[in-house]
Amino acid sequence: MNKPLTAVLSPAELEDALRTIGHERYHNRHPFHHLLHGGKLNFGQVQAWALNRYCYQAAIPRKDAALISRIHDRELRREWVQRILDHDGYGDEEGGIERWLVLTDGLGLSRDYVISRQGALPATVFAVEAYVDFVARHPPVVAVASCLTELFAPAIHKERIVGLLENYDFIDDKVLAYFRRRLSQAPRDADFALDYVKRHATTLAEQQGVLDALTFKCNVLWAQLDALYAAYVAPGMIPPGAFDPSRPPC
Amino acid sequence: MNKPLTAVLSPAELEDALRTIGHERYHNRHPFHHLLHGGKLNFGQVQAWALNRYCYQAAIPRKDAALISRIHDRELRREWVQRILDHDGYGDEEGGIERWLVLTDGLGLSRDYVISRQGALPATVFAVEAYVDFVARHPPVVAVASCLTELFAPAIHKERIVGLLENYDFIDDKVLAYFRRRLSQAPRDADFALDYVKRHATTLAEQQGVLDALTFKCNVLWAQLDALYAAYVAPGMIPPGAFDPSRPPC
Repeated sequence: MNKPLTAVLSPAELEDALRTIGHERYHNRHPFHHLLHGGKLNFGQVQAWALNRYCYQAAIPRKDAALISRIHDRELRREWVQRILDHDGYGDEEGGIERWLVLTDGLGLSRDYVISRQGALPATVFAVEAYVDFVARHPPVVAVASCLTELFAPAIHKERIVGLLENYDFIDDKVLAYFRRRLSQAPRDADFALDYVKRHATTLAEQQGVLDALTFKCNVLWAQLDALYAAYVAPGMIPPGAFDPSRPPC
Repeated sequence: MNKPLTAVLSPAELEDALRTIGHERYHNRHPFHHLLHGGKLNFGQVQAWALNRYCYQAAIPRKDAALISRIHDRELRREWVQRILDHDGYGDEEGGIERWLVLTDGLGLSRDYVISRQGALPATVFAVEAYVDFVARHPPVVAVASCLTELFAPAIHKERIVGLLENYDFIDDKVLAYFRRRLSQAPRDADFALDYVKRHATTLAEQQGVLDALTFKCNVLWAQLDALYAAYVAPGMIPPGAFDPSRPPC
């Protein structure tokens, strides 16, 4: 997916190449995000975004478990399991998926409907499951690299909190708890993963795999916004069975 | 692997059928175990057992992660992740794999050698990885059922603690911490899994899958003892590269 490497990169060069991919391909550049943050979407379009994005949130622990199922290094597993606990919750901590459901609650969507994924766009589900599958099939260092979109997440989360609060009277601070929590979780996760990748992707093939993994992951995120744009902005063709704001599910 | 079911079983009948499989096939019936618990093995044979069994212990979190990667039900994932934490450890809790390494330490085996799996019998590794693979490929209820050998574990753990302490002067209470901890963990896990299977395996196909899964898992355990017996008891043919007590690794 990227131009083939011709020589092994130094760790610093590898990091630069990864950051370049993010700069060019992270979904903060997608027109749907500009609309979302700029207050240009209506209530139904924000509902559709939150409903579809739930599928992504809900798949993250399965993706991280798929990665752990490939890891023979106990120390790395012990580090990585924290991500499952962060998203699914553990003990009294309710976890990121529950916080996302607070957002969809706040947007008037029933939990059963959201969790069922019945109203999600097929393209959303395909993209998300392609991510779980990618991690299950690639070597650990490549699978780890696919999470490096987290490097670029804090900026978009900050932008999102400000933009959503300022521009939509149906969104208040309470429903944005997910993004506030990720402001501290994502950098910690991303730093660990970037360091791991820089230390372990040392051959040409591994480095190529790592760069392609980040490109793939950017595509997973981008494709979800493409699908939302096509269904709910322009041309506005909602696929059969998908959430239709003009005919809300009972 | 079992006689085909001809009618759907009640939950109680399903439990009976599962217990019958355990009664007939659990590895407490294997001749190697009788030798182990009866004090009939020499130091090198006990080393070989602990070294090979490490491969099984070390694979358990990968197996449980493979299962979690298939589970869409967040509550079930939250329950199941405890198994990963129990085995890999979490925070200050060192975990079951570490406790197993205390046993192999006590038997004079180097940690690097044990963790490398270099000296393990190929048949051990094949059996263990077949288990991880089984869980990754089967529906969750069938995958859950494959752990039901835990129903029969406490009896063997108690027998093992007594037998090993009584019969071998090179084994003391400290190195048996793994088994003591499992005396409380295994029943909790097994009760949950049995209840889950009884509630969710309601069709003929699911019940057949569940019974076959337990049989498969009994075979995974049995095959490991067959391999130990053949290599280290009779005929005593140690495969190339496998641990040889008469020529210990440096």
